Amino acid sequence: MPSPDATATTGAADFFARHETLLSRASAEITARGYWSAYPESPSRSVYGDGAAEAGEAAFEARLGRPFALPGHPGEAGAVGGEVSPYGRALGVTYPRLAPADAVAAAKAAGRSWRRATPDERAGVAAEILARLNAASFEIGHAVHHTTGQPFVMAFQAGGPNAQDRGLEAVAYAWAEQKRHPAAARWEKPARKGEPTVLEKTFTPLGAGVSLLVACNTFPTWNGYPGLFASLVTGNPVIVKPHPGAILPLAISVSIAREVLAEAGFDPDVVLLAAEEAGGRSAAELAVHPDVRIVDFTGSSEFGTWLERNALQAAVFTEKAGLNTVVLDSTDDYKGLLRNLSFSLSLYSGQMCTTPQNLYVPREGFATDQGVKTPAEFGADLGAALDKLLGDPERAAGTLGALVGTPVVERVERAAKLGGTSWGGQALVHPSSEAAVQRSPLVTLVDADADAETYRSEWFGPISFVIATDSTDHSLALFRETVGAHGALTATVHSTDEDVLERARDAALDAGVHLAENFTGSVFVNQSAAFSDFHGSAANPAASATLTDPAFVTGRFHTLQSRRPARLVQGA
Amino acid sequence: MPSPDATATTGAADFFARHETLLSRASAEITARGYWSAYPESPSRSVYGDGAAEAGEAAFEARLGRPFALPGHPGEAGAVGGEVSPYGRALGVTYPRLAPADAVAAAKAAGRSWRRATPDERAGVAAEILARLNAASFEIGHAVHHTTGQPFVMAFQAGGPNAQDRGLEAVAYAWAEQKRHPAAARWEKPARKGEPTVLEKTFTPLGAGVSLLVACNTFPTWNGYPGLFASLVTGNPVIVKPHPGAILPLAISVSIAREVLAEAGFDPDVVLLAAEEAGGRSAAELAVHPDVRIVDFTGSSEFGTWLERNALQAAVFTEKAGLNTVVLDSTDDYKGLLRNLSFSLSLYSGQMCTTPQNLYVPREGFATDQGVKTPAEFGADLGAALDKLLGDPERAAGTLGALVGTPVVERVERAAKLGGTSWGGQALVHPSSEAAVQRSPLVTLVDADADAETYRSEWFGPISFVIATDSTDHSLALFRETVGAHGALTATVHSTDEDVLERARDAALDAGVHLAENFTGSVFVNQSAAFSDFHGSAANPAASATLTDPAFVTGRFHTLQSRRPARLVQGA
Repeated sequence: MPSPDATATTGAADFFARHETLLSRASAEITARGYWSAYPESPSRSVYGDGAAEAGEAAFEARLGRPFALPGHPGEAGAVGGEVSPYGRALGVTYPRLAPADAVAAAKAAGRSWRRATPDERAGVAAEILARLNAASFEIGHAVHHTTGQPFVMAFQAGGPNAQDRGLEAVAYAWAEQKRHPAAARWEKPARKGEPTVLEKTFTPLGAGVSLLVACNTFPTWNGYPGLFASLVTGNPVIVKPHPGAILPLAISVSIAREVLAEAGFDPDVVLLAAEEAGGRSAAELAVHPDVRIVDFTGSSEFGTWLERNALQAAVFTEKAGLNTVVLDSTDDYKGLLRNLSFSLSLYSGQMCTTPQNLYVPREGFATDQGVKTPAEFGADLGAALDKLLGDPERAAGTLGALVGTPVVERVERAAKLGGTSWGGQALVHPSSEAAVQRSPLVTLVDADADAETYRSEWFGPISFVIATDSTDHSLALFRETVGAHGALTATVHSTDEDVLERARDAALDAGVHLAENFTGSVFVNQSAAFSDFHGSAANPAASATLTDPAFVTGRFHTLQSRRPARLVQGA
Repeated sequence: MPSPDATATTGAADFFARHETLLSRASAEITARGYWSAYPESPSRSVYGDGAAEAGEAAFEARLGRPFALPGHPGEAGAVGGEVSPYGRALGVTYPRLAPADAVAAAKAAGRSWRRATPDERAGVAAEILARLNAASFEIGHAVHHTTGQPFVMAFQAGGPNAQDRGLEAVAYAWAEQKRHPAAARWEKPARKGEPTVLEKTFTPLGAGVSLLVACNTFPTWNGYPGLFASLVTGNPVIVKPHPGAILPLAISVSIAREVLAEAGFDPDVVLLAAEEAGGRSAAELAVHPDVRIVDFTGSSEFGTWLERNALQAAVFTEKAGLNTVVLDSTDDYKGLLRNLSFSLSLYSGQMCTTPQNLYVPREGFATDQGVKTPAEFGADLGAALDKLLGDPERAAGTLGALVGTPVVERVERAAKLGGTSWGGQALVHPSSEAAVQRSPLVTLVDADADAETYRSEWFGPISFVIATDSTDHSLALFRETVGAHGALTATVHSTDEDVLERARDAALDAGVHLAENFTGSVFVNQSAAFSDFHGSAANPAASATLTDPAFVTGRFHTLQSRRPARLVQGA
């Protein structure tokens, strides 16, 4: 048998050769930022092949009710579990329990050979992991569906190919970034007289240390893969700490990563699963471990801010909460606006970090092709559009999915008691799951001044506010101020006036948030496309990271240099 | 008269056109990392022209004994001063006093138009500032000489052209980094049927906010320019807070920057001077101001670590103290080794963050072309080499310069009382300055085990230790462990054995420090060449930044996006 090291070099190099074309294309696309996707998002037979859907579902079913197979994984096997699908089933899968100190020690040990692999080798391994994740998209889709409550097609797309695209984007940035400097250079300084001084120099990208991924309940893979792959490709072992409610999609991902690592001759503990039950505190304990040098987090502002203030030994990348905003000034396609916005509010029951919450409308109304609409008229029209969109139970279920946990359900109840005029918010019956909790999005009319307390905090879930303002200028001022102070991941403006659009762009720059203008068609502000859209700006309190850009990878590795006098070439 | 905005565009664009070739060359050189320099380091007449030296000295003399002219600068003019040259003269220059809150407010106001300028415009302004700094190299050289105590030629080179090269390197990284993504892109997603969905997108690099530069006493410009220019070019106003002992070199730099900004039509308050007397606390107050989003710092580990732990609202780039190390295993050029090392220890009296301190030698001695040398023999030979190098007072003064402050002098006294065998450390008389305090470097023999406490902290100044170890393996283990724990900016190995060199490279990678191998000629480990050498690695506790690399600039700006449905082109 070859030594592990020899295998490592061979296997990893093979994977690089296999995926080099894809990696080069991805590297070109991150700087072009047009449309590109490596993994088809259509779950159709013509794309993924006959039987792929059935095989994926069977693979998912075979996972249930037993310990999750992770050969060679450290920790106490089968000790952690308890996931219950929002659609009612207890998954019954158990995972190893791994004490934080043991996880870090295992990762650190495994990381030694990984950090000495070349960027090409690591990118090759990552691309192979992504290829196998793609092949497992149906299995992962079911796992995402039954942990997040996303409707299945969305779970397949966002949790499968779209997440894989985000992962590949991170691979491309990480790979390209490590190749900005040459592996070796010759430094030849001319002398005033005589021979030049010549040094030979090497430059070696070196991972920063153990990386921790703290994933969320709603988008375990889409929000998790960028940090996972950015850290891996820059030479860091990664401890994956899933949300207790959404372990399975990441356990499958970890399992695939370990399989590829082992085939490439690396220690599979380069990727570890650190699952825990609800109420556990291992994320905090892991995050401040002195050997943990990178933390990726998606979740609450409270814990994200805690990480930023306490994990000072690490580069911390957070995505937290914010006040996603829509400024309504005017439109020449009122029907399109209502259709587009009602879908944005409904998709996955507003449980997206990108779902609009604060909808600013001048008290006097805004001009539309259907006449001027006051805040109350607009709220009523939006409510009607929601009713229409969600009138058919099958379609409603395919759009809303299910509420993911008790806090979201309680928040909807609380919002319904705020008083004031509101639309929507009714309980809907899922056509095939008694357990699934569904609410149509609740839209409540509030006043910009009187109800400031209400709309200046995030109401995660199917809750939004039509906020009556003095004017579009007032709306823009509130947008600038509230997002600057509390953050946002998305912002939208509707206007037929180029000057207003220009001022909205200015306000968005000041607030530090990406802007969508006049979305009335088939693109929704909730959607962020890999290789083109930055997700998060890192320029407002909602996130300290984008998924993905150069700043997302530069802090994950360092370039170490050596220099020595050049040897004289004899007889040259 | 044209409006300020119109002038801004014209002036800045002019500067960009003037310097575009230089900027492009610099951008190519940062990724090639061979030898390149934009600003000649020879202070000769043939390079800088007849009379340049005299004019520069006269300009420096004309600054003395009066308020420093900073037209339009906010604050209380002439209120801060007190610099005294290590060569004896009280400079008598006074500077405005600017309260931290006022500095931030002025910077923020001035930054509004600056952050909306294009990366090209900002890079053009920066390159013009550098061109004028270069023209002022003699004046700045004298200012550096009389504040840091550096010998004049070194003050000219390190404080002038070499610092300008480092500044240009930062400009190149900042400029290139903002151009990695296009200003606009067209996103065209194919539909299964019918027309594709098309969005037009813009991408705008936007400065993070007010930037603070906290500079040091010993290398105010060389260590200061990278952060200053990286922040400027990425769109941030910069508050320059010099060390109370070395204000003048940065005041001249700020003055030139303000002059160029005004000519380009920008508010000169984009660059502000926040001078203070010794004992002031304005750096700490400025660093935690909520609007300060970037901090660059060179200085003590204590304050650097405080900044890292407290300026949590900002991206913090620090260069602190460490244990620069030399591992002596074997050499085939013992004379060259002694010559090179004695110069490294002597240059600017060891007051460089890159000066070696800990010299590890096996107790049994190390093999040289002059026979095996024990630690005591090596210490004696090094002492003799120092005596020879510094025997001539003119040459000694031109190498050592003067000790920069009381703490350094006291540290040398304390080191001399450590006991044990030592060489050097004698007081020398400066040939032309009675006030200049000079000591030949003190080399003390210590034991790796018994004296661990002594050599595991930094002794900034002309102090080093020959540390007797069990073996080269022991030396390498100590190197790895002490530098990993306490940091270092430089490390050196001397060995004729490729296997030892390989293991030293491994140890340096683990410790996270750049390595110099077998420096016996005319290149010294203290020297770090712009466009080729990274200064600091950010991979050990001595620094959280390199001057300069992509990680040094990515955190200083964010890329904000807007997207809108594409307009249909009529009749196309």
